[in-house]
Amino acid sequence: MSEQIIDATMLGACPVPLTRHDRIVLGHGSGGKLSAELIETMFLPAFRNEYLDRLDDQAVFDVNGSRLAFTTDSFVVTPIFFPGGDIGRLAVNGTVNDLAMSGARPLYLSVAFILEEGLLMGELQRIVDSMRAAAAEARVLLVTGDTKVVNRGKGDKIFINTAGVGLIERPVTISASGAKAGDKVIVSGYIGDHGMAILSQRENLTFESDIESDTAPLYDLVEGMLEIGGIHCLRDPTRGGVATTLNEIAQRSKVGIEIDEAAVPVRESVRGACEILGLDPLYVANEGKLVAIVDPVKADAVVAKMRTMKHGADARVIGTVVASPLTLVLLKTDIGGTRVVDLLWNEQLPRIC
Amino acid sequence: MSEQIIDATMLGACPVPLTRHDRIVLGHGSGGKLSAELIETMFLPAFRNEYLDRLDDQAVFDVNGSRLAFTTDSFVVTPIFFPGGDIGRLAVNGTVNDLAMSGARPLYLSVAFILEEGLLMGELQRIVDSMRAAAAEARVLLVTGDTKVVNRGKGDKIFINTAGVGLIERPVTISASGAKAGDKVIVSGYIGDHGMAILSQRENLTFESDIESDTAPLYDLVEGMLEIGGIHCLRDPTRGGVATTLNEIAQRSKVGIEIDEAAVPVRESVRGACEILGLDPLYVANEGKLVAIVDPVKADAVVAKMRTMKHGADARVIGTVVASPLTLVLLKTDIGGTRVVDLLWNEQLPRIC
Repeated sequence: MSEQIIDATMLGACPVPLTRHDRIVLGHGSGGKLSAELIETMFLPAFRNEYLDRLDDQAVFDVNGSRLAFTTDSFVVTPIFFPGGDIGRLAVNGTVNDLAMSGARPLYLSVAFILEEGLLMGELQRIVDSMRAAAAEARVLLVTGDTKVVNRGKGDKIFINTAGVGLIERPVTISASGAKAGDKVIVSGYIGDHGMAILSQRENLTFESDIESDTAPLYDLVEGMLEIGGIHCLRDPTRGGVATTLNEIAQRSKVGIEIDEAAVPVRESVRGACEILGLDPLYVANEGKLVAIVDPVKADAVVAKMRTMKHGADARVIGTVVASPLTLVLLKTDIGGTRVVDLLWNEQLPRIC
Repeated sequence: MSEQIIDATMLGACPVPLTRHDRIVLGHGSGGKLSAELIETMFLPAFRNEYLDRLDDQAVFDVNGSRLAFTTDSFVVTPIFFPGGDIGRLAVNGTVNDLAMSGARPLYLSVAFILEEGLLMGELQRIVDSMRAAAAEARVLLVTGDTKVVNRGKGDKIFINTAGVGLIERPVTISASGAKAGDKVIVSGYIGDHGMAILSQRENLTFESDIESDTAPLYDLVEGMLEIGGIHCLRDPTRGGVATTLNEIAQRSKVGIEIDEAAVPVRESVRGACEILGLDPLYVANEGKLVAIVDPVKADAVVAKMRTMKHGADARVIGTVVASPLTLVLLKTDIGGTRVVDLLWNEQLPRIC
């Protein structure tokens, strides 16, 4: 593949490296800096409007006085079956959660399949059955769909797109741009499970066979949190993990974020697998967790409420929003140091969702 | 590929052939009988609900008293650039039209890209620019999106999913199940242009280089028709063409449909290319045409109104809904005969949209 990386200092310009790719690379789908660059240099300039410009994981708009949320995600995970889930369950929960992160109750989902010629009918049936169960669990209806088939070798078994419509029933404004200095940073549980489950399966790491994907629908948890109040931002830290999500919030809200490494919940099995593979759990994808930025007055009550709920039993405060340094995420390490948690340039784990 | 075709007569059952495939074949994406079988034997039993069961090209539901339409389509057309359009313009107009066919004003679209590693950035930019222009023409906003990248050889340059939300502003109920005996069948213009444009490009048929895709947004036309009234069904005859659309309407409405071959508008260039390639224009895809089933009292006024509008200038009545024979589409041929226009079993033109 032909690609060019130009350091802007060579051009006598600002000291931020510019990348210029003349072809798409895997990193453009990573959720990191290359993804952001593609969005900022190509998609936003073309499609610019007040909804898209917010760069949240869902659009929120009014229709006749009702506040609706609308979102889409395609799922290209490989393998399509993995410990704790499959591409179908992921596709339902992913869109349910993107709606929930705006405070919307997920109502209706669309499902569009791109099937590769030769896909086993039995595998498709397993995926469809899994989607039915996931939709029932999340209390959403799959109301419209589409199926395309591509020639063998022009796809990879199955890709699934789900889009969703939800209703925001409370007078809340939840957005990545809502964080304020002093707010607390909450995670809803152990991080990195989904990414390491996929990678263990893909790499046949049988020594870590107890790691399962955390894929789960999170609206019930969000509803419990909204009852307490003080919720400024909600995000599900999928591609790029908690580190990428916190960077996005810091940038959109023009704040800094300080994280206490010792407070970040990581299972021993996940930590062990990450160490062997040279990965940082902060960058590993989750599919059943959320990051919340919460008014400090409400934070303890929000965590207490979350801990009473199925998908929030291990919730905790992991950090604080600070006024400076602007747009940086800092990690206070176990050994007393501080390091910047930056966006990754490229792909850590391709095709994780 | 392993597949089994069982003729039910061999089992002593009804004389309708049953297919049983243990793997997905291209025909499952054709919009014909195999697509219908996949929907009826796998997707409907799994996801059954009042919205999906209507089997229209969009779901219609109430949110706080507003009637919304919601639809999705993935686009896998090859080649991605063709005379008269490209995959991006198709992806915008396809979803705009699926909304419009319920009488809904298209409002908001989502866009999800699945990009193959190695796609030229310049090609992506052309597609994005085309989507911007198409969205402006259709007066919809692209408000939320997603980008995934798959490894080289696991996709085919670019697949695009669009989902859309529209608002039904008039007290109309338009559905494939709404046709009544006596209603008139209207098409909005020349049929088969899109499919033959793609095929000419794909097969390098330079002698038919004047055939261009008809891809166009149809809500303005629909709005004009709704002003006249009497609209019972609307469908855009995409995959499987007018023949497949009429069969679906006949089945859902439990009526027969008689078409007058001489009245069906087909360009000479399209007819010529179809003859050379052994295709029937009735089965060839359109992307800027609609089929309407209209109250006979209103039909002439509807056609007259359509002819004043950009995308309806060649509108005409091509047939009539009849009480019997039930669920069959009959064609009165130019030479005075009558033949059944059945659903195709398999794929006539794969990856046409």
